[in-house]
Amino acid sequence: MTDYRVERDLIGEKKVPKEAYYGIQTMRARENFPITGYPPHEELIRAFGFVKKAAAMANRDVGVLPANIVDAIITAADEVIEGTFNDQFIVDAIQGGAGTSFNMNANEVIANRAIEILGGEKGEYLRVSPNTHVNMAQSTNDAFPTAIHIACLYLAKGLIQSLEDLIAAIKEKEQQFDDVLKMGRTHLQDAVPIRMGQEFGAYRRVLTRDLGRIRSSIDHMHEINMGATAVGTGLNAKPEYMEKVVAYLSDITEFPFRHAADLVDATQNTDAYTELSSALKILAINLSKMANDIRLMSSGPRTGLNEINLPPRQPGSSIMPGKVNPVMAEVINQISFQVIGNDHTISLASEAGQLELNVMEPVLVFNLLQSLSILQNGMKVFRQHAIEGMTANVERCKEMVESSVGIITAINPHVGYETASRIAKEAIQTGRPVREICLERGILTEEELNEILDPKEMTKPGIAGARFIYG
Amino acid sequence: MTDYRVERDLIGEKKVPKEAYYGIQTMRARENFPITGYPPHEELIRAFGFVKKAAAMANRDVGVLPANIVDAIITAADEVIEGTFNDQFIVDAIQGGAGTSFNMNANEVIANRAIEILGGEKGEYLRVSPNTHVNMAQSTNDAFPTAIHIACLYLAKGLIQSLEDLIAAIKEKEQQFDDVLKMGRTHLQDAVPIRMGQEFGAYRRVLTRDLGRIRSSIDHMHEINMGATAVGTGLNAKPEYMEKVVAYLSDITEFPFRHAADLVDATQNTDAYTELSSALKILAINLSKMANDIRLMSSGPRTGLNEINLPPRQPGSSIMPGKVNPVMAEVINQISFQVIGNDHTISLASEAGQLELNVMEPVLVFNLLQSLSILQNGMKVFRQHAIEGMTANVERCKEMVESSVGIITAINPHVGYETASRIAKEAIQTGRPVREICLERGILTEEELNEILDPKEMTKPGIAGARFIYG
Amino acid sequence: MTDYRVERDLIGEKKVPKEAYYGIQTMRARENFPITGYPPHEELIRAFGFVKKAAAMANRDVGVLPANIVDAIITAADEVIEGTFNDQFIVDAIQGGAGTSFNMNANEVIANRAIEILGGEKGEYLRVSPNTHVNMAQSTNDAFPTAIHIACLYLAKGLIQSLEDLIAAIKEKEQQFDDVLKMGRTHLQDAVPIRMGQEFGAYRRVLTRDLGRIRSSIDHMHEINMGATAVGTGLNAKPEYMEKVVAYLSDITEFPFRHAADLVDATQNTDAYTELSSALKILAINLSKMANDIRLMSSGPRTGLNEINLPPRQPGSSIMPGKVNPVMAEVINQISFQVIGNDHTISLASEAGQLELNVMEPVLVFNLLQSLSILQNGMKVFRQHAIEGMTANVERCKEMVESSVGIITAINPHVGYETASRIAKEAIQTGRPVREICLERGILTEEELNEILDPKEMTKPGIAGARFIYG
Amino acid sequence: MTDYRVERDLIGEKKVPKEAYYGIQTMRARENFPITGYPPHEELIRAFGFVKKAAAMANRDVGVLPANIVDAIITAADEVIEGTFNDQFIVDAIQGGAGTSFNMNANEVIANRAIEILGGEKGEYLRVSPNTHVNMAQSTNDAFPTAIHIACLYLAKGLIQSLEDLIAAIKEKEQQFDDVLKMGRTHLQDAVPIRMGQEFGAYRRVLTRDLGRIRSSIDHMHEINMGATAVGTGLNAKPEYMEKVVAYLSDITEFPFRHAADLVDATQNTDAYTELSSALKILAINLSKMANDIRLMSSGPRTGLNEINLPPRQPGSSIMPGKVNPVMAEVINQISFQVIGNDHTISLASEAGQLELNVMEPVLVFNLLQSLSILQNGMKVFRQHAIEGMTANVERCKEMVESSVGIITAINPHVGYETASRIAKEAIQTGRPVREICLERGILTEEELNEILDPKEMTKPGIAGARFIYG
Repeated sequence: MTDYRVERDLIGEKKVPKEAYYGIQTMRARENFPITGYPPHEELIRAFGFVKKAAAMANRDVGVLPANIVDAIITAADEVIEGTFNDQFIVDAIQGGAGTSFNMNANEVIANRAIEILGGEKGEYLRVSPNTHVNMAQSTNDAFPTAIHIACLYLAKGLIQSLEDLIAAIKEKEQQFDDVLKMGRTHLQDAVPIRMGQEFGAYRRVLTRDLGRIRSSIDHMHEINMGATAVGTGLNAKPEYMEKVVAYLSDITEFPFRHAADLVDATQNTDAYTELSSALKILAINLSKMANDIRLMSSGPRTGLNEINLPPRQPGSSIMPGKVNPVMAEVINQISFQVIGNDHTISLASEAGQLELNVMEPVLVFNLLQSLSILQNGMKVFRQHAIEGMTANVERCKEMVESSVGIITAINPHVGYETASRIAKEAIQTGRPVREICLERGILTEEELNEILDPKEMTKPGIAGARFIYG
Repeated sequence: MTDYRVERDLIGEKKVPKEAYYGIQTMRARENFPITGYPPHEELIRAFGFVKKAAAMANRDVGVLPANIVDAIITAADEVIEGTFNDQFIVDAIQGGAGTSFNMNANEVIANRAIEILGGEKGEYLRVSPNTHVNMAQSTNDAFPTAIHIACLYLAKGLIQSLEDLIAAIKEKEQQFDDVLKMGRTHLQDAVPIRMGQEFGAYRRVLTRDLGRIRSSIDHMHEINMGATAVGTGLNAKPEYMEKVVAYLSDITEFPFRHAADLVDATQNTDAYTELSSALKILAINLSKMANDIRLMSSGPRTGLNEINLPPRQPGSSIMPGKVNPVMAEVINQISFQVIGNDHTISLASEAGQLELNVMEPVLVFNLLQSLSILQNGMKVFRQHAIEGMTANVERCKEMVESSVGIITAINPHVGYETASRIAKEAIQTGRPVREICLERGILTEEELNEILDPKEMTKPGIAGARFIYG
Repeated sequence: MTDYRVERDLIGEKKVPKEAYYGIQTMRARENFPITGYPPHEELIRAFGFVKKAAAMANRDVGVLPANIVDAIITAADEVIEGTFNDQFIVDAIQGGAGTSFNMNANEVIANRAIEILGGEKGEYLRVSPNTHVNMAQSTNDAFPTAIHIACLYLAKGLIQSLEDLIAAIKEKEQQFDDVLKMGRTHLQDAVPIRMGQEFGAYRRVLTRDLGRIRSSIDHMHEINMGATAVGTGLNAKPEYMEKVVAYLSDITEFPFRHAADLVDATQNTDAYTELSSALKILAINLSKMANDIRLMSSGPRTGLNEINLPPRQPGSSIMPGKVNPVMAEVINQISFQVIGNDHTISLASEAGQLELNVMEPVLVFNLLQSLSILQNGMKVFRQHAIEGMTANVERCKEMVESSVGIITAINPHVGYETASRIAKEAIQTGRPVREICLERGILTEEELNEILDPKEMTKPGIAGARFIYG
Repeated sequence: MTDYRVERDLIGEKKVPKEAYYGIQTMRARENFPITGYPPHEELIRAFGFVKKAAAMANRDVGVLPANIVDAIITAADEVIEGTFNDQFIVDAIQGGAGTSFNMNANEVIANRAIEILGGEKGEYLRVSPNTHVNMAQSTNDAFPTAIHIACLYLAKGLIQSLEDLIAAIKEKEQQFDDVLKMGRTHLQDAVPIRMGQEFGAYRRVLTRDLGRIRSSIDHMHEINMGATAVGTGLNAKPEYMEKVVAYLSDITEFPFRHAADLVDATQNTDAYTELSSALKILAINLSKMANDIRLMSSGPRTGLNEINLPPRQPGSSIMPGKVNPVMAEVINQISFQVIGNDHTISLASEAGQLELNVMEPVLVFNLLQSLSILQNGMKVFRQHAIEGMTANVERCKEMVESSVGIITAINPHVGYETASRIAKEAIQTGRPVREICLERGILTEEELNEILDPKEMTKPGIAGARFIYG
C-alpha cells in the first residue's frame, strides 16, 4: 500500500501525500518557495473560500457548471471559510507567480474535498477539476486580488474597532485630566502652561482623523475585478457571470462589493493597497509620536518628567529590582516602525508592476495584512494596559508650572516682547521668579500680575489682564 | 562711514549690512545653518506675506495695532507677496528652531520695509518691531504652519492642473489606440490579446484616482491654526482676532480657510502633511509604473518590443550615433524616486514631533514643497514631449499577437484546461500554430476555430464561440 | 488536583500552567504582547542557550555560583541549544521591554529545567532562581545583544554559503555563455554588441562584492558586551567574570568573540545591526536588478526578448494553458523588497535609541533575522531552480545583433560621430543595413567594413579596423 | 545682427545664445528637464573638467588627437575645474538620459572654449567637436560615473575632516565630563549611575566606527571605468588609452585611481554608491540618536532634565521671551532625516538599473552629493555651536542620582534579586531612601551600605562591597 497518489500537470508528474487535500501544483510551489516559513494569513485563506463559493454559484446560474459539482464546491468552500483546512494551505507567504500558487492551493483543496463529497477519491480530477471547475471563469489575476480585498476588509473592520476603542479610552483621559495644569513644552524646552486634558484631546483628534483616513481608504477595496480573468479583458467570462459573482460575494460576506469600472485597470494597478497602507502608515506615525510623548511624560520616576503613571505590567529588568518600564508604549513604537517598513515594501512592490499585471502582489499582501493585524492587536493591548489605567501626578505637574519662566509670555502684550525678554533673561540667570522682578522694577502692579500670570487663564485664548491695556 | 548697522536681541548684538531688510535674527540663522545652500521655496516666502498681511489687518480690527503701522505692514507684505524681497530671504531651507528663523526673517524684512515706508531708517524697531508689531498675536508655531498650508495649496493647484492635462492627453491616446490589437503580457510573458487603448485607459483611470486622492488630501490644508500661538492654547490671541485673521486670509488668497477645530492638536500634529505626501507618493508610484511600461513598449527599436514610438527629444548618446532614448519617461521615474524618498524623510520628521510641537517641520516642508513642484514640472514635460506625440507600431503589434500561443486560452471553455495545456505545450515546443494542431487533432472545426480564435473578440468579456458549447 | 502553580514577582502573583517550563514573567509578556503571533526565531532561542551556559561557567569560575547549580544550568542550556524547549519560548517576536521578556523566558525555562534536574518541582525558585542564578551578573542589556550577535553569526554563515553557491553557479553560466553574442542594451534601447558571458560576469562580480561587504559587516558582530550589565558600566559584574564569559562563548560556539572596547557604547548603540542590514540591503538591490534582467531576457517566448530559457518550475496560470512564468526570479524580487523594507524598519528602530539603551531592539532583531533567513533561502532555490538549468537562445540573440543599427558605433573613429549619426538616422528610417549605406556612399570599402563591423570584435576593447586610420 | 547662432544635431537644428559656451544638446536638455531648478553640484562640474582633461591627454599620447586640439581642451578643462564656467552648466540636477546631458554640457562648453582658444567662433565644431574630440574614446557611460567618483571623493574628504573634528570635540567633552556623576536611564526610566564622560565616550566611539565605515566605503570609489565606453566592452577605446587615462586622472587629482577589474560590471552596477550612501545613512542614524540625547539632556531648563547647557545661538521664539532652543541639535536631526530619505531614493534608483546601464544615475547622484554636503556642513556647525561650548550642570546631576532608587541594583549580589525587589518597591511607594529601609530591616550594616552604595563605584565593573560576601 502506498502513501502517495501521483498527479500530473503541464510540467510533469509528482507524488502527492495520499491524505493531502492539496495537489501537485501546491506541492511544486512548496518546493519552489521555502522562503519565510509563514503560511498565508488565515483571513486570506478564508477569503479564497468566499471567492470560490461565489464563483461556483455564478457559474451555476449561467448554466456552465453542473448542479452537483456546484453543491460540492460550495460545501467544500464553506469548510475552507470555517478554517477546517487551514493546515492544507501550505504555500509560503512570499512566492513567485503572482499568487497563482495561493489560488491553485485553494482550487486543489476545494476540488479534492468536492470529489470526496461526490464519493470519489482525492486526485480524481475528472470528477471535479481544480482548473476547469473550481477555477471556472476565473484567473488568479481576478480571484487573488478579490480575495485580498475581502481579507483586507475583514481585518480593517477589526482594526477600526480597535482604533475606535482607543479613541474612546483617550477621550476619557481627556476628561479626567481636563483640570491638570502642566507645563507645555516646545523643543523639549519650557514653553507656556497647558492642561493635560488638552494634550489628550490632541491625541484623540489626530487619531480620529486617522480613523477617517482608514475608512475612506478602504472604500476602494469594495471595487473588485472578478470576471477580469487573465488581463482584465474578461476573456472566457460571460457578462451575466460577472454580474452574478459580484452580487453573490456581497451576499455571503458583509461587504457591499461593486465591479471595478475598468477591469484592465483593476487587474494591473495596486493603488488600492498603497492607499490603505499609506493610511496605516500615517496612523503608525501618529501612534508612535503619542507613544513617545507618553514615554517622556512617564519618565522617571525620580529623574525624569514624572507627570503621569502607567499601570505596571511586568518587571522591567532582569537585573534592576523595582524597575518598571513603559513596555506598552514601547511596543506601539515598534509596531509603528514595522508598519512604516511594511509600507516601504508595499511601495516597492506596487511600483514594480509591469504591463497587464503586478506579479509582486504576494509580498505586498503579506505586508499589508500584517500591518492591519499588528496595528489592531497593538492598539487593543495599549488601550487596555496603558491608557485605561493611566493616572496623572497633579502636584508634580503644578510645581513645574510654578517654577517655570515660561509664564513670562503672558506679559508680552503689556510690556512688549523686548522688555519681556530682558525680564526672562534675568529670571533664568538668577533663578528669581518672574513676578518678583516685575514688581521690583515697577513694571506691573501686584494686581495686574495676579491677573496676567494666572496659569489656568493662559491655557485659553485671549490676552490675560487685557483690561489693563485698553481700560 | 559704516556699511553696517548694529542690532540687538536676547543673545547679544550683531552687525547687519546697512542695506539689508533682514535683521539680526536672520543673520544668526544664516550663521547657524549653512546646510543645503538652498533658500526657502518662493511659494513659502509669498505665503508668509499673506500671513503677515492678514494678521496686521486682524490686529487692526481688534484695536491693538495703530493704523499707520498696519498700513505700512500691509504695503510691505504685499511687496513680499509680489516677490520683491525674495533675495532678502536668506535662511537655509533646512534649519533648527522649528521655522522660527523663517518667521523672523519675514518679520524683520516686513518691519524694516514698514519702517522705511513710515520714514524711518532700517533697524529703528521702536517704530515697527518685528516681534511686537509684525508678529503680533502670532507665534512661529501658528504663522509657519499657516504659511506652509498656503504654499502647499498654491503648489497643489498647479500640480492638479498638470495632472489633469496629463490625464486628458492620455485619454486622447486611449481613443487613438483603441483599435491597436497587441499582445497582453503578464509576468512579461505572452498572455492573451489586448487593445493598446485598453492599456492607456488603465493609465488614465489610475491617474484619475490619484487626482481624487490629491484633491481629497489637500482638504485638511484649509484648516489653519492662526491664533494658536505658542502651544495651541491661544495665549495672547483674542478670539475676535482669531476669527478675523482666518477670514482675511481667505479673502486675500484664493482658498476657503477655516479654523482647525482644536488648535492644540493643529499645532503639534503634522498629519496634514503626511497625508498629502502619501497621496503624492502613490501618484509617483503609479507614474513610475506607467513610465516603466512606456519604456518597455518603446524598447528597441530593433531588438526590443518596439510597440510604440516616442518623439525623439535629444541625441541619446555621446558615443552611439543615431541612438535616441526614452528620456522623458526616465525623468518621470527619477522624479518618482525622489518623491518616494521625500515621503520617507517627511515620515521621519512627522514621527519626531514631541509634546506640543514638531520642531522638524523645516525639513518636512522642504521635501513636501519639492515633491509638489517636481511632480508638477515633470508631468508637464512628460505630457508635452512624450505622450502627445506618441505613435503605435500597429503592424508590429499585430504580428506579435498572431505569432503567439497565448490565444489558446480562448479554447479552454470548449476543451477544458487540461487538454488546452497539452495543445499549448506542443505548440510552444514545435513552433506550430495552435490552430493547426487543433485541426489536425480534430479537436475543433475550422468554423469553430475562426470564431473562437478571433483576437479582437478576446479583448472583450465573454466566451468566444460560446454557441458551440451550449448550442 | 490543580493544573497550575502560583508564581510571584514585583507586580503580584499569577497562575502558571503546571507543566510549563516558562514562568510568571513569560506569562505576563505573553499577555502584554499578542502582536504578530510569531515566536522568536529559533536561532535566537538557541543563542540564549549559549549565553546562559557561558555565563554559568564563568560565574562558577569566579566562585559565585555553586557547582551543582552550575551543572544543572549547563544541562538545561544544552537542551535549549538543541531545540528541546522551542515550544516553551512563547513571547511574541515584537514586544516592549527591550528584550527583557526574551531574556526572562530563557531564564525561567532554564531555571525550571535546572530545578527538575536537581530534583525539585518547577517553580521552586529558591533552588535555582531565574534572576539570581541563571541571570547572574547579567542584564537583558548585555545578554540579549550577545544572543542577537550569536544568532546573526549563525544565520550569516548560512547566508554566505548560499551566496557563494549562487556565485559559483553564475560563474558556470558566465563560462557557458562566453561565446553567445547578443545585443547590449542601454535605456532598453539597442546599444552595441556584448557577449552574454560578459553579462553574467558582471552579475558574478557585483555579488562577489556583496559577499565581501557581508563578511566585513559581520566582523563587528564578534564584539560583545557581556558584563556590561544594566547600562554598560559593568555594575555587579566582576572583571574576571567578564573575561571568562567571553572566552567560554568562543569555546562553545564557532565564533571568535571579543569584548567590545567600550561597554557603555556597546550597550546603547545598534550600528552593528544597521551595518549588517545595509549590507543585506545592497545585496537585495543587486539581486533584484539581476532578477529583473533575467525576467527581461527570458520574456516572451514569442512576444518578448526571448534570449534565455529558464527551467519551467510550475504551471504559470490557472487559466492560460501552457504558460510558464519566471517564478524563481519573481520571488527574488519580492525577497529583495522585503529586505529593503526590513532595513527601513531597522533604521527607524536604531535611530530611536535613547540614552543608555535602545529599547526598540526586538523589532530590529525580528527584521534582521528575517532578512538573513529569507535571503539565504531565496538564493538557494533561485540557484537550484533558475540559474543552474538556464540556457541561451543563441540563434535568436545572433539575429538581433545582425538586425541592429547599434554596430554603427564602431564606425565613429573612422568617419567622426557626426557622419556616423547621419548614416544611423538613415538606416533607422529606411530599415536598410548600415553596411549597405556606407558602401553606397563610398564612405568605407568592403574590406574596411568587414573588419570594422565584426560584432565579436566589438565586445573587446580597442578600435576595430584601427589600421585603416593610422596605417 | 543676431544674438543667436544655429546649431544642428541628430534631431534637427536650434538657436543657441551667441555668447553661450554650451550648445544645442545642452539647450535641448534644458528644455526637456525643467524639474528641480537646481544646477549640477559644483563638485560634479569640476569633476567633469578632470575627466575631459585626462581623456585629452591620454588620447594625445595614443596619437589620435592633434596636439593643438589637446592643448586647447586642456586649457578649457582647467578653466572648468577652476569654476570659471559654472554658470554655463545649466542642465537640471534631475534629468533623463543617464547623464548624457551633463556629459554633453561639459563637452560643449569645453569644445566652444577650445575653439575660442584656437581662434575660432563658438559653434565651429569642425575645429573642435564636442563628440569627436572632447568626448573622444568616451561614452557618457564611463565619463559620467568617473566624474561622480571624483566628486564623491572630494566631498568625502571634506566630510571626513568634519567628522574627525566632531569626534575630537566630543573627546574633549568626554574628558571634561569624566567626573560628572549622573543617573543612567534605560527606557527613559531611572536605571543606575553613570558618568557623563562615559556617555560622551560612547558617542565618540560610535562616530569613530562611522568614520571607519565611510573610509572603507569610499575605497570602491577609486575604481573607475574610463575606457568602458558604451556598455563596458571598451569598444573604440584602445587599451593604451585606457591605461593612460586612469594614470592621468590620478596625477591631476589627489586620488589613487585604478581600473575597475571588469568594465561591463563597473558600467552597469551602482553598488559603490549604495555602499557609500549606506555608510552615510548609518552615520545619520547615529548622529540623530546623539542629537536626541542632547536635546533630552538639555531639556528644561526648569521643567526638564537640565543636565547640560548648550550655548545659546538665537532667540528661540517669536512670542516667548527668553526662550532658547537646542537648534543646532535639531538641525542635525533634520539633516539625518534628509540623508535617510536620500538613501531611500538612492536605493530605488540603484535597483532600477537594467541590463548594461543604470539610467537613473542622475537622481542617484543628486541625492548622494547632497548627503555628503549637508552632513559635512551640519557636523561642522554642530561642533562649533553646540558641542564645543557645552557645559554640565554638575550639582543637578548629582542630586538626581542621590534621589534615585536605581542604586538598589548594587545590593543584588548581597541579598538576591527578589529581596532587593521588595526593598525597591517599598522605596518607590513610600518615597523613603533605599539605605534607610535596608538599615531598618537589618539587611545590611551601615558600613556595608557605605561601600555598596557608593555611586561612583557603581560606574565601574565589579561588585561593590564584594568582600562582605566572600570575606
